[in-house]
Amino acid sequence: MSTPTFKRLPRAVREQQMLDAAVKVFSRRGFHAASMDEIADEAGISKPMVYAYLGSKEELFTACLHQEGTRLMEAIVGAVVPDLPFDEQLWRGLRAFFRFVGAHRDGWAVLYRQARGERPFADDLAAMRSRIIEVVAGMLDRGLVAQGREVRAAELEVMAYALVGAAESLADWLADHPDADPDGMATRMMNFGWTGAGSMLAGHQWRPPPAAD
Amino acid sequence: MSTPTFKRLPRAVREQQMLDAAVKVFSRRGFHAASMDEIADEAGISKPMVYAYLGSKEELFTACLHQEGTRLMEAIVGAVVPDLPFDEQLWRGLRAFFRFVGAHRDGWAVLYRQARGERPFADDLAAMRSRIIEVVAGMLDRGLVAQGREVRAAELEVMAYALVGAAESLADWLADHPDADPDGMATRMMNFGWTGAGSMLAGHQWRPPPAAD
Repeated sequence: MSTPTFKRLPRAVREQQMLDAAVKVFSRRGFHAASMDEIADEAGISKPMVYAYLGSKEELFTACLHQEGTRLMEAIVGAVVPDLPFDEQLWRGLRAFFRFVGAHRDGWAVLYRQARGERPFADDLAAMRSRIIEVVAGMLDRGLVAQGREVRAAELEVMAYALVGAAESLADWLADHPDADPDGMATRMMNFGWTGAGSMLAGHQWRPPPAAD
Repeated sequence: MSTPTFKRLPRAVREQQMLDAAVKVFSRRGFHAASMDEIADEAGISKPMVYAYLGSKEELFTACLHQEGTRLMEAIVGAVVPDLPFDEQLWRGLRAFFRFVGAHRDGWAVLYRQARGERPFADDLAAMRSRIIEVVAGMLDRGLVAQGREVRAAELEVMAYALVGAAESLADWLADHPDADPDGMATRMMNFGWTGAGSMLAGHQWRPPPAAD
């Protein structure tokens, strides 16, 4: 165990060190096996100080989730260049998402899957997911309006649910396939979701056969 | 509380009664608040007999999950008519899925969401999900082969992940919107996923701009 350091650092910097250390340890061990000793050691900070700053292991995990969720959202929103054609915007957003997951495969596998399978983190994750769906619906709305199309808010929400669900499922696949190329996933999603949406915008709709029961 | 009945029934029939009662009570109360008393009462069977047949509340919940998962899979596979065009097969499978969720909104909301957010059920659900992805990949494979197309197994798996993820996310939306029409969700999914896949089959692919960083 390294000697705890007692340099005077701004609170925000120290918290960030602890969060980064905690993400590493949770990713390495999983929530249950991770110990506050190992997190303190990784951060080079005494265990009581970790508790003092960020509370219990549960609170620390929640803080990690929020940090990673915020970083993911920033990566996506930051990648979208408003002046580009809409399909390219969408592709850039997707590519940023898959690159983020590809660069944090361990973190995704552990943080996301653990959060999904463990109360009360599952509720936190659901809230973050709702926020991402709102952001995606907003992006779709602006993109479609820029093309002179208007789509009902409920339809946008449904499209955003389908898009986020498909992307999330592919991220899960990506996390399990270390050799897969994140950029290739974005292109696949475009071919899955956008080629369809593009056809719809061009007026080609799939309709059920009239005689179907 | 109703009087427990002691009619001699075949084991399978009695177990089915208990499972149906348990699904109702778990849907009504959620896993934590559901009591074995209420489940026994709903089934018209004594509590010790519920324990004797199906074990603890955890084991009972797992049995409910497996039953509902099997019913869902049977509904999807049973809806697919092999001789129809591939897009119609896919649409029938999706429609069966959304009809199932629409007819069991409470069950979906509670069983699926609770299972996702609670160990060890999350692992069971993940295993069932893998099985559904395999089934969907197999359907896609047969459908594409029938059209004279061959797609690499890894690509089929990725398409199945995207399709299942999108459908799952829309099912979540459907469970929260009691007035939404399940058949309409299937048509939306076709427009989202199939119109794209159809374009791909016709040779129209979305490609990233060559100069993109």
